[in-house]
Amino acid sequence: MAYSSSSMSVQPNQQGGPAPAAIELDRLRHDILELAEIGKIEGKPGVHRLGFSDADMESRRWLMAKIEAAGGTARMDEAGNVIGRWFDSDEACVMTGSHIDSVPSGGIFDGTLGVLTGLECARVLQTLPEPPKRPFEVVAFADEEGRFGGMFGVQALTGTTTLEWIHQAHDVGKVYLADAMAAQGFNPDEALNATRKAGSVHAFCELHIEQGPVLEQKGLQIGVVEGISGVFKWMVRLVGKANHAGTAPMDMRSDAFMGLADFAHEIPRIIAEEGTDKSRLTVGKVELKPGNPHTVPGEAEFSIVGRDIDLDVMKAIGLACRKALSAIARRHNLHFDFEELSWLDPAPCHPDIIALFKSHAERMGLSHQVMPSGAGHDTQFMAEFTRAGMIFVPSVGGISHAPDEWTHWRDIEQGASLLYETLKSLLYNEAK
Amino acid sequence: MAYSSSSMSVQPNQQGGPAPAAIELDRLRHDILELAEIGKIEGKPGVHRLGFSDADMESRRWLMAKIEAAGGTARMDEAGNVIGRWFDSDEACVMTGSHIDSVPSGGIFDGTLGVLTGLECARVLQTLPEPPKRPFEVVAFADEEGRFGGMFGVQALTGTTTLEWIHQAHDVGKVYLADAMAAQGFNPDEALNATRKAGSVHAFCELHIEQGPVLEQKGLQIGVVEGISGVFKWMVRLVGKANHAGTAPMDMRSDAFMGLADFAHEIPRIIAEEGTDKSRLTVGKVELKPGNPHTVPGEAEFSIVGRDIDLDVMKAIGLACRKALSAIARRHNLHFDFEELSWLDPAPCHPDIIALFKSHAERMGLSHQVMPSGAGHDTQFMAEFTRAGMIFVPSVGGISHAPDEWTHWRDIEQGASLLYETLKSLLYNEAK
Repeated sequence: MAYSSSSMSVQPNQQGGPAPAAIELDRLRHDILELAEIGKIEGKPGVHRLGFSDADMESRRWLMAKIEAAGGTARMDEAGNVIGRWFDSDEACVMTGSHIDSVPSGGIFDGTLGVLTGLECARVLQTLPEPPKRPFEVVAFADEEGRFGGMFGVQALTGTTTLEWIHQAHDVGKVYLADAMAAQGFNPDEALNATRKAGSVHAFCELHIEQGPVLEQKGLQIGVVEGISGVFKWMVRLVGKANHAGTAPMDMRSDAFMGLADFAHEIPRIIAEEGTDKSRLTVGKVELKPGNPHTVPGEAEFSIVGRDIDLDVMKAIGLACRKALSAIARRHNLHFDFEELSWLDPAPCHPDIIALFKSHAERMGLSHQVMPSGAGHDTQFMAEFTRAGMIFVPSVGGISHAPDEWTHWRDIEQGASLLYETLKSLLYNEAK
Repeated sequence: MAYSSSSMSVQPNQQGGPAPAAIELDRLRHDILELAEIGKIEGKPGVHRLGFSDADMESRRWLMAKIEAAGGTARMDEAGNVIGRWFDSDEACVMTGSHIDSVPSGGIFDGTLGVLTGLECARVLQTLPEPPKRPFEVVAFADEEGRFGGMFGVQALTGTTTLEWIHQAHDVGKVYLADAMAAQGFNPDEALNATRKAGSVHAFCELHIEQGPVLEQKGLQIGVVEGISGVFKWMVRLVGKANHAGTAPMDMRSDAFMGLADFAHEIPRIIAEEGTDKSRLTVGKVELKPGNPHTVPGEAEFSIVGRDIDLDVMKAIGLACRKALSAIARRHNLHFDFEELSWLDPAPCHPDIIALFKSHAERMGLSHQVMPSGAGHDTQFMAEFTRAGMIFVPSVGGISHAPDEWTHWRDIEQGASLLYETLKSLLYNEAK
């Protein structure tokens, strides 16, 4: 850990003279813990700030007050995105941020860390002798967690959603997005006014917890994200014949579960043949029908979720799954159909931003690796709108979307410092 | 189909003189179709005569009236078994029967066929010039389908249940057997009075539909049951770690489903190494937790039901399952536990009865094979009480416990005739 000037409070400047402006972990920690108090539910662990819920709106108003207190101008756009702005000018801004909504019983860092680190960066930037040559913005995107099925806030801001989508979107409890917005004082028909002009954002950076085990297991401090993996989600149905598990001999069955098990057995082969160490293929949900211990399963319905950072690899994996399923269906005398519920192309981060994160990490002596993001993030939409990049800090035990999500404060400090240095480069050195 | 004298109505006796007494298919069919009207529910297919329901009791009263109309004495014992008796004497009786309760949306033959064929046999026996040397009984056992978790009626009759069991038994809706009995006018504390004296039943025979595909697929008319397979039911839990399906690399997962899939893959090997063509091993119920397409399953809970006709083979299969699961758990970094919910030893049929069924089938020219019963039947308890045996007739498509359960009338006629001839031997030739 050669780099320690990131925190004045931890290690005072040793050269004498004024300490270089740097992230103050204590302020950031205070903000994180204060926001963690919003969206608590008696008797349920974790935070509950579902998109457009009262708790979510309360956290947005809290953030706006924090922005104003930190010398910025705060606004909430027509899609519910909270935006803080500093160093206003006509130049394209440098933007950072993430989200502050949560899943039910979520952790205190997911999204929040990126937004509040941005706020802390704004505070530090204002202490520099020279103002940046561009405006700086911190954004908390609305409904990143997808209560209503998309990443509504960033999609509205980047112009990648439509009024049609908005009016059909609903949560699992059949509450419509448009109704949830109206209940919070928004006019859903005006949501697309949130869309920013092309070229208005010079670059976008996001800091996020990894939500996976890689950095911790490899003992690394930083993950520089090369891109957000594309993802497809299928629901597959294998249909055989339900039979009495006692009266149907093994060789007279059309056992749908045995077909599924054969498919699961092919997953390592498919990854080995068509994928890379960045590929993922998961069966996470299975329903057998009739689902009785004494009945040979006549039907198996299951999910396949595939991911890769490379579009061609994704397609090859999907094709290999179809081939395997169709061979298995023939072998077990099953019918086979599947529905592709979603397909999202990979979203590569911009080489400029990746290079900037890497060079600062090297200079600061932070151990790091370039890696894909297997989870979706606001950056995946920002990457199509401007030059965008993302860094991860380690998640203890890889846990996220759960109350025991945790990231060590020293890792947060290092990640926040790397974000700050990178934003500073974008605000000062990269200015036209 | 060399044998056709079984039905006067189909083929009159060609030798002139009086036709030999024989099953009359028309009467039997009429009874079956009449009983099929009891337990219908508007808008739901099939019959609904769950043990001790109103429809079940209605069918029992219907049967008692039928017995009386057929010249027998009818009674319902303290456990709800309906018993018809003919040719009363102090000798041990020959008994046949099955059950008339059904699963929800059950078929019209399951159980019913054996009871009503017994009734038809009683009618025919009364037309013979000489009365049998023993009493003849037809029984409809209570709750064979196990609404309350056992085979209550036959267990009470054979003295293999207890008051403790009776008072804790309940159905899936938490209705207690004792309450259901009381509601129908029974005193559950008197149920064990239904137990018959040892030696009071000379032999027991049951005719039942196969409920499996073997006879139809092999083109056979009769299955002579060598015994009712033993069965064990386990619930197994593999516990790994739930992870985000995007952020957890394939080689850093403890995927409980992949453990289950590996076990499924071992099933054919286990059967091949430890079992025979009479062995069954089935995974019929699976629950993954959290059961989300985007989450690596942290837990897989699933049933294993194993069956064999040989106790040692059953034990060997169970042991092989445990070994496989424990190796798989180590390989996938999972915890593994299982609960044995039930273990029922195989119940062999008596060689005398098997031989009698076979010799009559051969004499009558009926194609047949000796086979296990993979499903449970009242015979499995009667086999410990007296010499017991059982025959199957083919099930179309192997379907049972479903509204489209079917057996061709010609197959019913042949099975009924074989039962009649065998009972006649037991009643006349085997008398002391």
